[in-house]
Amino acid sequence: MSFRASVLTLYPEMFPGALGLSLAGRGLEAGAWSLDTVQIRDFATDRHRSVDDTPSGGGAGMVMRADVLARAIDHASPEGDPRPRLLMSPRGKPLAQARVRELAAGPGAVIVCGRFEGVDERVIAARDLEEISIGDFILSGGEAAALVLLDAVVRLLPGVMGNVRSGEEESFENGLLEHPHYTRPQEFEGMDIPPVLISGDHARIAAWRKAESERLTAERRPDLLKP
Amino acid sequence: MSFRASVLTLYPEMFPGALGLSLAGRGLEAGAWSLDTVQIRDFATDRHRSVDDTPSGGGAGMVMRADVLARAIDHASPEGDPRPRLLMSPRGKPLAQARVRELAAGPGAVIVCGRFEGVDERVIAARDLEEISIGDFILSGGEAAALVLLDAVVRLLPGVMGNVRSGEEESFENGLLEHPHYTRPQEFEGMDIPPVLISGDHARIAAWRKAESERLTAERRPDLLKP
Repeated sequence: MSFRASVLTLYPEMFPGALGLSLAGRGLEAGAWSLDTVQIRDFATDRHRSVDDTPSGGGAGMVMRADVLARAIDHASPEGDPRPRLLMSPRGKPLAQARVRELAAGPGAVIVCGRFEGVDERVIAARDLEEISIGDFILSGGEAAALVLLDAVVRLLPGVMGNVRSGEEESFENGLLEHPHYTRPQEFEGMDIPPVLISGDHARIAAWRKAESERLTAERRPDLLKP
Repeated sequence: MSFRASVLTLYPEMFPGALGLSLAGRGLEAGAWSLDTVQIRDFATDRHRSVDDTPSGGGAGMVMRADVLARAIDHASPEGDPRPRLLMSPRGKPLAQARVRELAAGPGAVIVCGRFEGVDERVIAARDLEEISIGDFILSGGEAAALVLLDAVVRLLPGVMGNVRSGEEESFENGLLEHPHYTRPQEFEGMDIPPVLISGDHARIAAWRKAESERLTAERRPDLLKP
């Protein structure tokens, strides 16, 4: 069984979006993964098809209703569905490559895209939603975050990325930022490729790359080096 | 002059994507911001229209050529263009809401979407590209990250989000995660809305929300509380 993604959203037309093209899109066509969307609004029960209401206690914005969202989740992910249920939310645990790898090794994911001011806390508890944040910034909804999460996961699925080794050498896979890259032309606007890289000495090249990775990480992301 | 985004990519058909719908899409139609894409491949000069080549020093994957990308950047952002030039890259500075606000207050952004193993370091230096990361995970390319960055920026532009106050109260705008939200129905699967929120006592509600924000931040993101 290949990786199966179900996205719950008020904007199903945002999917597959960028995931319908390039590597992810070819993988989707080839059956390396599948994607379905669930329109949360289809689970509203009043005649206005309301999915949100004003926040209890007052304040700006609207809150997504627990009952409507619970019905949508129960439809997309009935009891016994082994897939984790994720809620894209700036309050969540920051997404990191380790969780991406875990998800890619699993059966798929049910991804709830919040909108408005937020989602009623009770449905997060009642349906055991794992809140995941892609960063310390605010989006207009969880959809763009879901696209990012799926892009990160899908590229790790068997048959999606041509060159398997490539996935292992990149930033974060070893806890460091990636070293600088160079390619032809040999000279660009007066700047040459560092001589070590064209020395043919593989041990020196590996040492240079490791040192550059460590230097960049120390300069830019000392937080990654903390024990 | 409204916010002007230029995206340099090998997949211009990924844009506006999700940004063509909902709040961002209505803002785009209304002229609150504009978006153009530049196909990097149009600036290749060989008969195969190559944009990449093998990494100097060996290794997996391909590297985007400095000369091709420089020509694309010079086309999209000629001398005198006041817009910052961003490169979406996992090696970059992590995007945070403060940078999002700065970008939204400026004239726009030129956004380079990397692909392959990376971009030749020399063009990053020569064109003063600001590397921005949206998180510690690897994407198949910078496109999904660019969609996220633009979504975060565009919702702050004048005329895009209906309720201005809403933007100010959310996670990270005050350095804390957002408090839990509730809305009708009053009872959901045996769980009630916390009584304080329906007390009508605005001071108590504000105090409860602040305490909940602090509790959630301490539990989930102690890193945000560090001085």
